[in-house]
Amino acid sequence: MNWVGIDLGGTKIYAIVFDGTDVLAEGKAKTPTQGGPLAVVDAMAAVVRDLGPVDDLAGVGVGAPGVIDPDEGTVQQAPNLAGWMEPFDVAGALSAVLDGVPVAVDNDVNVGTLAEHRLGAGKGADNLLGVFAGTGIGAGVILDGELRRGPTGAAGEIGHMIVRRGGRLCGCGGRGHLEAYAGRAAMERRARDLERKGRDTALVELAPARRMTSGVFVKALASGDAVATELIDDAVGALGVAIASAVSLLDISLVVVGGGLADRLGPPFVKRVEEACLADVFPRNPDLRVIPATLGDRGGSMGAALMAAERIGASTVK
Amino acid sequence: MNWVGIDLGGTKIYAIVFDGTDVLAEGKAKTPTQGGPLAVVDAMAAVVRDLGPVDDLAGVGVGAPGVIDPDEGTVQQAPNLAGWMEPFDVAGALSAVLDGVPVAVDNDVNVGTLAEHRLGAGKGADNLLGVFAGTGIGAGVILDGELRRGPTGAAGEIGHMIVRRGGRLCGCGGRGHLEAYAGRAAMERRARDLERKGRDTALVELAPARRMTSGVFVKALASGDAVATELIDDAVGALGVAIASAVSLLDISLVVVGGGLADRLGPPFVKRVEEACLADVFPRNPDLRVIPATLGDRGGSMGAALMAAERIGASTVK
Repeated sequence: MNWVGIDLGGTKIYAIVFDGTDVLAEGKAKTPTQGGPLAVVDAMAAVVRDLGPVDDLAGVGVGAPGVIDPDEGTVQQAPNLAGWMEPFDVAGALSAVLDGVPVAVDNDVNVGTLAEHRLGAGKGADNLLGVFAGTGIGAGVILDGELRRGPTGAAGEIGHMIVRRGGRLCGCGGRGHLEAYAGRAAMERRARDLERKGRDTALVELAPARRMTSGVFVKALASGDAVATELIDDAVGALGVAIASAVSLLDISLVVVGGGLADRLGPPFVKRVEEACLADVFPRNPDLRVIPATLGDRGGSMGAALMAAERIGASTVK
Repeated sequence: MNWVGIDLGGTKIYAIVFDGTDVLAEGKAKTPTQGGPLAVVDAMAAVVRDLGPVDDLAGVGVGAPGVIDPDEGTVQQAPNLAGWMEPFDVAGALSAVLDGVPVAVDNDVNVGTLAEHRLGAGKGADNLLGVFAGTGIGAGVILDGELRRGPTGAAGEIGHMIVRRGGRLCGCGGRGHLEAYAGRAAMERRARDLERKGRDTALVELAPARRMTSGVFVKALASGDAVATELIDDAVGALGVAIASAVSLLDISLVVVGGGLADRLGPPFVKRVEEACLADVFPRNPDLRVIPATLGDRGGSMGAALMAAERIGASTVK
């Protein structure tokens, strides 16, 4: 049986048909910024129908940003989705417009970690930390083979671990959080601040009025831009420190780093994060490795399909 | 049936007879500093025999500092125990000198957390972080009712979580670790450093050549000593930050703080740690509480007895 996995992002809906091993088809659409949750559900349904007959599907999995209740299939809060003001039953609504096909929903970072654990760089590890560095930073925590969700579903908020007491202000209002140093949005804010304060930087030249994408950081870094170098150095150090802390607390020896920014900066970036982690971590576990995620952009949708297969009926997926 | 719980410390062996609810008897001895593991085992056996007939015991539990393999009953490494150079089978050796009574061994912080979880401030919580601040700092992590040990048995090393990237040097060689700010030994080192650099402090006056105990910190703080105030402020802030990070990563809403330094400084100290944690933590879980441990000095031995009962045979303890 085939499953559809949907990666629901703030700007894009990306969906695949997955048989548990291979991606058989893919489709995408822009995420509606008008019309709230119902418009988003309709847009997801249209992408799914474009992929083939709905009757042939065992189920659909959605990886969504924000706080999810996977048992209820609701997206409780989603700051990155326009008009998402209160909890909405995505599983129920999407299933209704797809002729009753079962739908499961989970957090995008959790499903990304699941994919790396089952099929990617974390395959075979009983304990795994999956860190995804993009606009913000989140993590999935797999302990003894099981994803840790926590009683409120909020486990894995590595972006809000504190790497420097009293340090930079985070978007959430806290100080010194990892995301304030290594989240793309915070790095963009800082680059524009530094430019306003008189520093020249290719970052602002490349993205004067549009979003400072991960690609912009890669270009500026490659050109030797001082501000970009400084921001990436800070991000590397902060990621190394937060990962070291997580590893000390949980005794995990494999960390996979993915997400838009990490994927674009590539393995040399992740290698530097590993070095920063190893410099200060204790206990010194000789097996500790920090390695790049291998599934890239497709990890989220593959993880969403895997999650649906595990929640709806593992026995039917090959 | 009764169990003996032993809290094996660097300076003191403290043992109780425990029926699962009440402490029926207690005994203690100095921890031998000569003769290595065998002398320590003999000293523990003497304390146990002083408590009553060995035949009446269901088993003995030992909470020991350092890295423990609870399945093998061995103490792998114990930097605070003199002459403990390599792994030693404490369970086997102690059982042998106690006529075959079953013996179980675990880490002192793990058993302290177990005691607070079963009988103390953490009773009833499914998820609990037990933080013990004394000479060093360690934590026990209970997730969904189960103690997290980790594949190498090293989970819970909160003392080596990084609260300030590039910060103070820790005894382990890493930088910015919690223990470098809030461990009693590190605070003593810093007080003596500051005094050598010309700062007057009651801390050194009260403990010119002997160990700067937690009691010395309490006295100096009460007298308004500036260095003591500064060191305790730093410890509060560092503990708050590390706890906030742990809570963000794991979605835990109850944190119990105990150990020699925290017990002596009392509830107002733990209240300040709670405030420091809440100031920067995200997500903001309204249920999050940081509260004092309630079992005090006896927590370790009670936890050792509970651990033995759970490992050796839970059905025989009431």
